[in-house]
Amino acid sequence: MKRREFFKKAGVSAVGAAGAATLATPALSQGNMEWVAVSAFGKAGLLGAALDKFAEDVATMSEGKLTIKTYHAGELVGGLEALDAVQSGTAQMGFGAPYYWEGKSDSISFVAAMPYGLNAQEQNAWFYYGGGIEMADRLSYNPLGVKFLPMGNTGNQMGGWYAKEINTVDDLDGLKFRMPGLGGEVLKTFGVNVVLLPGNEVLPALTSGAIDGTEWIGPAADLGAGFFKVVQNYYYPGWHEPATVLDSFFDMQAWEALDDHLRGIVERAAASTNLWILSRFQAVNNASLQKLVNENGVQLRPYSDELLQAIGERTAEVVRDRASASPEASELYNSLIEWRRTMVEWSGISEGKFMNARTSAKFEAI
Amino acid sequence: MKRREFFKKAGVSAVGAAGAATLATPALSQGNMEWVAVSAFGKAGLLGAALDKFAEDVATMSEGKLTIKTYHAGELVGGLEALDAVQSGTAQMGFGAPYYWEGKSDSISFVAAMPYGLNAQEQNAWFYYGGGIEMADRLSYNPLGVKFLPMGNTGNQMGGWYAKEINTVDDLDGLKFRMPGLGGEVLKTFGVNVVLLPGNEVLPALTSGAIDGTEWIGPAADLGAGFFKVVQNYYYPGWHEPATVLDSFFDMQAWEALDDHLRGIVERAAASTNLWILSRFQAVNNASLQKLVNENGVQLRPYSDELLQAIGERTAEVVRDRASASPEASELYNSLIEWRRTMVEWSGISEGKFMNARTSAKFEAI
Repeated sequence: MKRREFFKKAGVSAVGAAGAATLATPALSQGNMEWVAVSAFGKAGLLGAALDKFAEDVATMSEGKLTIKTYHAGELVGGLEALDAVQSGTAQMGFGAPYYWEGKSDSISFVAAMPYGLNAQEQNAWFYYGGGIEMADRLSYNPLGVKFLPMGNTGNQMGGWYAKEINTVDDLDGLKFRMPGLGGEVLKTFGVNVVLLPGNEVLPALTSGAIDGTEWIGPAADLGAGFFKVVQNYYYPGWHEPATVLDSFFDMQAWEALDDHLRGIVERAAASTNLWILSRFQAVNNASLQKLVNENGVQLRPYSDELLQAIGERTAEVVRDRASASPEASELYNSLIEWRRTMVEWSGISEGKFMNARTSAKFEAI
Repeated sequence: MKRREFFKKAGVSAVGAAGAATLATPALSQGNMEWVAVSAFGKAGLLGAALDKFAEDVATMSEGKLTIKTYHAGELVGGLEALDAVQSGTAQMGFGAPYYWEGKSDSISFVAAMPYGLNAQEQNAWFYYGGGIEMADRLSYNPLGVKFLPMGNTGNQMGGWYAKEINTVDDLDGLKFRMPGLGGEVLKTFGVNVVLLPGNEVLPALTSGAIDGTEWIGPAADLGAGFFKVVQNYYYPGWHEPATVLDSFFDMQAWEALDDHLRGIVERAAASTNLWILSRFQAVNNASLQKLVNENGVQLRPYSDELLQAIGERTAEVVRDRASASPEASELYNSLIEWRRTMVEWSGISEGKFMNARTSAKFEAI
């Protein structure tokens, strides 16, 4: 069952990696290096395009010294086999989300997203100036034989889709809800029957009534998934995934074979892609939200303060419990929680207060 | 007087560009290209380090095919002569902030920051996926003979330092306050005597009582500037500069002489630097804020809702008026205001609502 959790958001079906295992390790052609990259995401859509652009960037910047052939989910291996493919030497690079690999590491989920944790700007501050990349490498990725770089962020997600209104914690009791990760574990403690389903099974399950609701990503991706056809209550904000990280990871031998020049190119291309993916999600979500509300009858609803407070308190317990799983998980948790403490303070009086002033203001636009 | 406004935040003294005009245009050495870059910012500090890292990145990624010799403010030309130096061919690249060049373009300030406008994430979404880079180039930068790329963001700034408490609009009347740009124009309409001073003259002016207050950047930069030694009321949030853009600009001939490979490297290095500078500001501000409050007796105060609402209404008038200055300014304003409309909506229910829930929650930490 654990394995199925990995299907979250990839929206792909698993394909065995066996057939691909005969591929060569880093190919060399006339002194140029050729990598295979495998993705947890489908070719269509924002994340498929982002990986292709990354590969194109690297080829352009390196004048073809490093070319990366991309295989989207299901093209070479199943989306959730991406880490397996890199570990087995089938691919030199993978692209996904850290919590897809939590079956292999009990600390790696902390790199992905923490309920009530960091927003995207704070998360990037931790990665680039809080020692986050080094810490994630040392505690989570290097033990799996790979080098990690952040390569995208979804920004704040939506809370999810519900058949009925959810106003109090009592409304959660007995609910059948699809939600992976730490957020799902929190809801379980309120009596929610948490279900884990791959992307392509969610809409059928909603339609048959097998589940009463689901969370997914945000308006743009959710519109495409079509959940509005069955359930109409769309809640915000995404307390469970305030800013979900997308990861790139590299076979350690392939990484170490890069000279400074190519390593610099891969690092900067990953950082650019990180910024571009977040910018793209930010750019497209509102138009999709408007389409959902104005053309498809979706009811946009805020979680009540009571619910957010109760969930937050329970989150504190569940996350601390998960952090005690291993010394690695504890160390990551402690670093993130200390970072979060100061970030909440600063972001609250700057970005947070500014956004409040901007939305509460009676003047319509500047 | 206009000219002095450009000194904002550069904290440098002007040095004539004449002595430097004898420098060669793009140097070529054994087929490699050598650029000169001039900066509006001093060598010491976050932005000086960021430009040096950018140059190092480009050299590494290009294997030395493009090297960039950086001159920080005052080293070759005065900080606010950076655009002049690129226009005259003294340098191939400049680094600064768009509103430093508003004497040369009546639309360029809109690229920098708009009071009550976009936050950093929304601003980047506009640049990379809202046509922002192309539009800024076409309307503001290309007419000046240069190519533009965003290369940093300060994030939300602080509202400023005041000798006395500011609670109502009446408290603004007669105040002598240092503030450049559109924010200053808004305060003028409330009877504020807006003063424009270069960075190195602000602390002396506060000390002598020539001014009653000043805005600057954020806690890290403000701590270094030492304003707390004289005035102790530190207001938030920075309604006037919600996310100030830093710009890089390139002599058009030098830019067009780059092949796809080098152009790709410069573009990705600029995007990485954009993300890294914002991350760095986010990472360091809170520790400085704590130092100001806990070690230096600074009173951290929120602007009142009444004040924020009144300023917002006045901002709408002032900004619209400025936008009518030229067809270019109007086009930029209209694009930004339309972008802002949808961004406020989406950010408000995602990031905004999430940050509210996180700060208002009684649970201390997850």
